[in-house]
Amino acid sequence: MKFATVSIEGRTAWGHITDEGFHDLGAMHPQWPTLRDVIAAGALSHIPDTDEIPTLYRRGFSYEIPVPNPEKIICVGVNFPDRNAEYKDGQDAPPNMSLFPRFPRSFVGHGHPLTRPPESEKLDYEGEIAIVVGTGGRRIPQDSALSHIAGLTLCNEGTIRDWVRHAKFNVTQGKNWDGSGAMGPWLIPFKSDTQLTDIELTTEVNGELRQQDRTSRMLFPIARQIAYISTFTTLVPGDIIVTGTPTGAGARFDPPRFLKPGDEIKVIAQGIGTLINGVRDE
Amino acid sequence: MKFATVSIEGRTAWGHITDEGFHDLGAMHPQWPTLRDVIAAGALSHIPDTDEIPTLYRRGFSYEIPVPNPEKIICVGVNFPDRNAEYKDGQDAPPNMSLFPRFPRSFVGHGHPLTRPPESEKLDYEGEIAIVVGTGGRRIPQDSALSHIAGLTLCNEGTIRDWVRHAKFNVTQGKNWDGSGAMGPWLIPFKSDTQLTDIELTTEVNGELRQQDRTSRMLFPIARQIAYISTFTTLVPGDIIVTGTPTGAGARFDPPRFLKPGDEIKVIAQGIGTLINGVRDE
Repeated sequence: MKFATVSIEGRTAWGHITDEGFHDLGAMHPQWPTLRDVIAAGALSHIPDTDEIPTLYRRGFSYEIPVPNPEKIICVGVNFPDRNAEYKDGQDAPPNMSLFPRFPRSFVGHGHPLTRPPESEKLDYEGEIAIVVGTGGRRIPQDSALSHIAGLTLCNEGTIRDWVRHAKFNVTQGKNWDGSGAMGPWLIPFKSDTQLTDIELTTEVNGELRQQDRTSRMLFPIARQIAYISTFTTLVPGDIIVTGTPTGAGARFDPPRFLKPGDEIKVIAQGIGTLINGVRDE
Repeated sequence: MKFATVSIEGRTAWGHITDEGFHDLGAMHPQWPTLRDVIAAGALSHIPDTDEIPTLYRRGFSYEIPVPNPEKIICVGVNFPDRNAEYKDGQDAPPNMSLFPRFPRSFVGHGHPLTRPPESEKLDYEGEIAIVVGTGGRRIPQDSALSHIAGLTLCNEGTIRDWVRHAKFNVTQGKNWDGSGAMGPWLIPFKSDTQLTDIELTTEVNGELRQQDRTSRMLFPIARQIAYISTFTTLVPGDIIVTGTPTGAGARFDPPRFLKPGDEIKVIAQGIGTLINGVRDE
């Protein structure tokens, strides 16, 4: 079951994606205006049956980010083997995970091009798995943390690389350019820990493999991420954690290999799907 | 004219604060459920007259943060003379401002205690002026940037100091503990640049002066902040920029002077008001 948020006929809608197209479930459930509301109601895994058959749109819809209005999106940095070494700063691997927020407007949906702004030619990709919180909480114990997940999606955590280190601290400005990253295509309901424990994650640019690793090798596993983040902030339904990227972003090549118009980037994870985006100059 | 968001009789309301108390304007303007909606409508400086007289509550209300649901809150770090030197890391002052987001739930309103969590005894104050965006935009020119401000408020940008440098990058986790900071008491409509150009900002702890500086001495003036931030992200009505704190936070003393239950912190700025908060152990 794949849940998506789409634009269609000038409006935003949510529903199911099948091989046939988009099935407009939101029209049948006006009590839930967005997928965030579906998640908050605990209904993602069991949308109630109705006597109606949802309207099917075979074409004419375009993907938006799956949860259009999360309270917060928190990204985890430096979370795969050798990622710390890529920084070449002589520092040991840190005892805790790096975290930075992104605003929803820094992401586009599946199929839309990432935006390369006139201010920089250093647009870079980072393929990641993102989890969407279902049951909120504070100080969630690590051993029950995965039960707080409602669904899974993919993220191209696109970065304007030279703006990441513009200032003394923090990557905020390099990570929050409007439309510089992508999320989607859809949300897969999370029903079993095996959907996360040892999943292959790869990123391709124009068909060439750039990033490849497995969730089992994360330095800070997803259950630990949920436990650590919820130590300081209350997680609420619809919150998104972007769980970290493997080695092999374009900035790590010598010379660096940044994205340019015409490129096609695919982020692929077993059991979740493939997120595909092009690149456009603003 | 002071606009506030308050809790009263189990609901959230917005209106005016006078010496008499809280005047419930929101009840007369149901088209604007929150102050963010008032701001987005461009109505903060000229609430339309109605035939009604707003209900006055002389007591029984408590302050919430002035804009309860901003799309984003962005804080500016290391923005007053000698602040860079306080880090004692041998680095030159950076060419650009440090930026980090905070989530609304990391702030309480005027009069509520800051929360010191059981995980740390290093709760620290940072007095700041915050601007609220009125007219949104992208790539706003610096010379017209101040015209995008709807109003001014104060921030105690409370920080869990040892969690700021928990990880390789970013201050996210030290800056986002639930209820660790404060914002308010109210929003003063911004009508003239003189409300910001050379304003004294002070912070007192238990009546003792800890921070004191003037906005005219900011390394990155507020107009430049708006121009720089809007280079990468679209500012929208209700967005908040917390504009930086002077030297003298508790962590800079030797030994450090962190906050503890029973302390009272005042953040004071000419023409804006005084934000007062205590401290409680969670």
